Amino acid sequence: MSRVIARLAELGLQLPPPLVAPPGVVLPFAFAQRVGSRVLIAGHGPQGPDGRLVGPFGKVGAEVEPDAARHAAMLTGLSMLASVQAEIGDLDRITGWRRVFGMVASAPDFHGQPEVINGFSDLIHAVFGPVTGRHVRSAVGMAVLPWNIPVEIEGELAIDGGD
Amino acid sequence: MSRVIARLAELGLQLPPPLVAPPGVVLPFAFAQRVGSRVLIAGHGPQGPDGRLVGPFGKVGAEVEPDAARHAAMLTGLSMLASVQAEIGDLDRITGWRRVFGMVASAPDFHGQPEVINGFSDLIHAVFGPVTGRHVRSAVGMAVLPWNIPVEIEGELAIDGGD
Amino acid sequence: MSRVIARLAELGLQLPPPLVAPPGVVLPFAFAQRVGSRVLIAGHGPQGPDGRLVGPFGKVGAEVEPDAARHAAMLTGLSMLASVQAEIGDLDRITGWRRVFGMVASAPDFHGQPEVINGFSDLIHAVFGPVTGRHVRSAVGMAVLPWNIPVEIEGELAIDGGD
Repeated sequence: MSRVIARLAELGLQLPPPLVAPPGVVLPFAFAQRVGSRVLIAGHGPQGPDGRLVGPFGKVGAEVEPDAARHAAMLTGLSMLASVQAEIGDLDRITGWRRVFGMVASAPDFHGQPEVINGFSDLIHAVFGPVTGRHVRSAVGMAVLPWNIPVEIEGELAIDGGD
Repeated sequence: MSRVIARLAELGLQLPPPLVAPPGVVLPFAFAQRVGSRVLIAGHGPQGPDGRLVGPFGKVGAEVEPDAARHAAMLTGLSMLASVQAEIGDLDRITGWRRVFGMVASAPDFHGQPEVINGFSDLIHAVFGPVTGRHVRSAVGMAVLPWNIPVEIEGELAIDGGD
Repeated sequence: MSRVIARLAELGLQLPPPLVAPPGVVLPFAFAQRVGSRVLIAGHGPQGPDGRLVGPFGKVGAEVEPDAARHAAMLTGLSMLASVQAEIGDLDRITGWRRVFGMVASAPDFHGQPEVINGFSDLIHAVFGPVTGRHVRSAVGMAVLPWNIPVEIEGELAIDGGD
């Protein structure tokens, strides 16, 4: 078993299955793409154990509580890891996190985007540690996100054995 | 004639001329920048055959219909290809698409950003095929975009002959 | 003294001290990260000489005037340079700017994001010149930014001596 998967299990977490898109939706892109030692990660949202996107849906600071959004950011991290695993085969190949772009669907007067995206960063540090898990980050307020999800995150990381 | 240009012609499409900025506007940046094998692409919008930005202007889900925005996303792809061509000379040098960040000016209750940005992804796949055209993507809802355009897309691709 | 710091002094500018985060806020990420010849830069905002985020706070086109936001974009550039210096030691190692993603907290009818982010681009060109300072850019309207800052910018640049 990979060390990353084992560490997730220690934390009581597991990766979700592939995304089950909402009915009728075509998503004609890759969820992760390896390019040499870089892995680019598409925008992801929070998934449930059945692969579907999960709520609470809406805007943080209005329908969605910040703590619930922070949990959604953690679930989004698991979704990203599942896509990376499908692309590169083994999450133990990850040698470093790079860029994290955290988007929070926000009511116009909600200013706590960093605390929401900390749900993602805290997961990454808990799983990968402070060196491999080190990343740059933005955490910003979006007008609205697809299917009314509260959080979407895209990013980049590095793996060994690239060209 | 380049294969990409020929393929666009088969689809009844052609690249727009260089952007004609709105009166009085200075845009002090590069529309595309080659760095070794990477080509970074600035945020682009939909251009008309005279080089100017074209409407419909406004927010999708309010003044702009989703289908019109989807067409704007396709036009934005053509604008990006024109900038890449100006930077690297020949679009046949493109060996792979990488990152696509699709921004849709959105009414607060519009959740169909992916379908809008599919107008871009479908163009890329139609022109470059599923292997070279493969890309990661985000499609998200912005509060507002410059000059009230409905769609703006930035991205990255790879070319041969880099360092 | 580094040439970049000397040039900033000629312009009457200096780098801010490390960010003093708002009370109670944990920011568990790197403000800049070197990866070979790439330096990735986290989302930054305008800082004052005491290291704290400075206003005017709010949305451009509502509480914040465009000219004040343009100045905030310049201050944000100084904040980014300070973080890059902390990561790589000497700003004279910068060989080229790459990607700039400029986010402007915007009232729904404010369309002048490019002019706001010009405050950043003009600084970069004044300090680094047109060749090293050349960059691709997006300038877009966000629903809201952390702590109600008017501008946040993330980016990437290149340095010598990478892998």
